Formats: sequence, C-alpha cells, structure tokens
Amino acid sequence: MEDLHITDRSQLRRAHERGAFDRKTINAILDASPKCSIAYLIDGRPYITPTFHWREGDFVYWHGSSASRFLRHALQHEVCFNTFILVGYVMARSGMHHSANYSSVTLFGKPQLVSDEEKEAKLTSFIDMLWPGRSDILRPNSSQELKATKILALRIEEGSAKQRTGGPNDDEADYELPIWAGVISVKEEVSMITDDPKNLPSVTRPDHVNHFHDQKNRAGLTAGQ
Amino acid sequence: MEDLHITDRSQLRRAHERGAFDRKTINAILDASPKCSIAYLIDGRPYITPTFHWREGDFVYWHGSSASRFLRHALQHEVCFNTFILVGYVMARSGMHHSANYSSVTLFGKPQLVSDEEKEAKLTSFIDMLWPGRSDILRPNSSQELKATKILALRIEEGSAKQRTGGPNDDEADYELPIWAGVISVKEEVSMITDDPKNLPSVTRPDHVNHFHDQKNRAGLTAGQ
Repeated sequence: MEDLHITDRSQLRRAHERGAFDRKTINAILDASPKCSIAYLIDGRPYITPTFHWREGDFVYWHGSSASRFLRHALQHEVCFNTFILVGYVMARSGMHHSANYSSVTLFGKPQLVSDEEKEAKLTSFIDMLWPGRSDILRPNSSQELKATKILALRIEEGSAKQRTGGPNDDEADYELPIWAGVISVKEEVSMITDDPKNLPSVTRPDHVNHFHDQKNRAGLTAGQ
Repeated sequence: MEDLHITDRSQLRRAHERGAFDRKTINAILDASPKCSIAYLIDGRPYITPTFHWREGDFVYWHGSSASRFLRHALQHEVCFNTFILVGYVMARSGMHHSANYSSVTLFGKPQLVSDEEKEAKLTSFIDMLWPGRSDILRPNSSQELKATKILALRIEEGSAKQRTGGPNDDEADYELPIWAGVISVKEEVSMITDDPKNLPSVTRPDHVNHFHDQKNRAGLTAGQ
C-alpha cells in the first residue's frame, strides 16, 4: 500500500500542514462515510453529483443506472472525487479565526468501467460495507438489474487527505478578551429506525440495522474525535 | 422570489419526480446546512473544494483567503455548487432498491466577487447565520483581515433541488419475502461542546452555543424528517 506521490494537482496550496498522503489516513477517511461528491465535465463545464462510494483495495467505486448521463460523462474525462466529514465548528474570538474541524479526501483520475463479470461481487461489497452480512439475506440481483447498473472504479493514486482537529488559534492579544471560544463537535447519529409497514410479521430487525452506528464508528475514524 | 427556469443543464435526467425548482424548497435546503461542495475548472480539468456557504436573498456566498487558488479559478469560469444533506438509508428487500433519503440543491453559474465595501456586512451575516448575535460580541475584523479575505457570490438562478423521502419501493413479488426493510434515519447532532482552556474565568457559554442545534433545526428543514 504505497503512499500517494504529490503532483502539481494534488499539492495542497492552503494550510498544507493539514495534508496527508499516506494510504492509512486516506483509507480511514474513505471508509468512514459513504457520502461523496464527484465533479465531472459535460461540454467542458463542471457538474457535481453527490453519491455513495465504497472502497476495496486501491479503488473507490460508485454506481448508478446504465442510462445515467453522469456516469457516461464521468467515463470520458478526468474527474475529481471528494468526501468530506464535518467534525466540529471551531469558534474563536474573532470572526477571522473561526474554522472547522473535518476529515476530507480528494482524488483525481479517469474512472474505469467495472466489467459485467465483476458487477455482482462489487455490489455485494457495497451492501456489506454498510451492513455486514446483508447481501446474504437479500433477494439476489437479477441479470436484468445487473445490466441496468453501471459501476465506476477510480484508482487511489493521485490526491490527498486533509484534516483539521483541535481548538481555535486566536491572535495572541485576543486571548485577553472576555469572549467565549471553543469547539462544537458534531456527528452523524441514527435518529430513528422505521420498519417498513409491509414487513412480514415474522421479520425482526437484523443486527446490521440495530448496530449500524457502531459499525460505522468501527470503520476507523470516529466523527467527533 | 421567482421559481427557477428549467434549463438544459438543470433539467433532471434521473428520478425527475424528486426535483423542485421553487425557491421556497431551494432556500430551505440552502439554509439547513452550511456544508457545500463547489466544482470549478483549472486548465479545463474539474476540481472540488468542500466549504461553507451562506445565503442572503438571491445569492449564496462562500469565502476564503484572497490568495486562494480555488477562489481565483472559481471567478474565471462557470462553477457548479452542491449542498447535500443525507437524511436516511433506505433498505429494501433487494440490493437494487436500496436507496437514500436526502435533500440536495445544485446551482450553476459564474460567481461574482463581493466588493470591498460589502465584505464586512457579508461576513457578519455568515457568522450570525450560524450563531445568531455572535458577531456583536466578537473582536471586530481588522482592515488587514478584510483585505486578506475574498467573498464570492453566486446568483440563485439556474439549478434545482432534489429530495427523496419515505420508505423502500420494492418489486411487488418481493414483499412476500421474509427480509427486513425500512429506513435508518440519520441526523447531524452536537456530540460535545469543548470550552477553549484559554477562555477567561468569567466567560460563560453563550446561548448561541448551547442552542446551536435547535437553531439549525429552526432553519426550515430538519434532517431526519
């Protein structure tokens, strides 16, 4: 698992002390949340599609409909992938020094199309990454469903992680001011689990649902830390 | 407050029944979370920078260092702005019908540079949007700080909202399968408030910190609903 080489595109311009190029840090952030944004080009203009990703080895994957305009164009040019986890609001004694604690990964590259033969296994990984064991209990994918699904893979080779932690850094003179400063830490929490009213009476909530949140925190990075 | 005209670029290609072009919906989502992603071009290639935005009237704003490469390039071409709030994981009886509940807004356009004269007022709005009244108690911005800050404004005129709510929609035959289906709703919660150890002993936590989360929920859209 090689660290990423710094390129002109991935070199951090601002706050470069917050940057990281090692795969352990990058993987932990990629695995901590499925939420990501992908920027791509249509007719030379930038578009963003927010979607879910998952990681296996040296690739991040995302999927969509075979008819998706987004996926069609994402295969034609280089894209920029970003996942951003907000960890806290950093409040200082001046507006200027307010900041955010976060973990973020940005990747660049030209995505590849996952072959028909690999699709089933990749979708299984996606489901099981979120809910370990769930793919075993689901109705299997039909060949028609697989045909209607396109999966893209982006190699983790150009990009960086960026993180901020800790409290505010105020101007020295401002520490004498009677202004509250500190950090409001935030975290994505499960607020409610709703059973589908059409569930069969015999069906109970699986562990991968009841312990969803714990699993996410086990993924390597706890938002709020 | 006019609804947005549907353009070729903003027309929804997938799940268009989830789309909305009315400003009430768009504003509520823009105001519900400061987190956004902005896609822009450098040498014709797409980049994403995650940042915070705020809205006033018909514009969304974001800011950064006057030396920022991101802001310099974002002023040169059209950008794509997106804010995405994950509201729930929708779990179905087949992998294919798993989905997400969310609220998202995408905007397109060429940002404008906010004039020096307007900067102070805009930064005040940004702080007070997150923490009502906070700008009153902060050490005022210095002219040097204002000079070092660039603010961009994007007119809310081309784009759309997209939302999904509710439970899974399974294939009719799958409702007879003994598989748990439902929704795991999620919400960004305050997990901890940390006082800066350098706060003066006389300083107490202001209401805009203690009630931060309630204020956010008052903004119009409650994640998890």
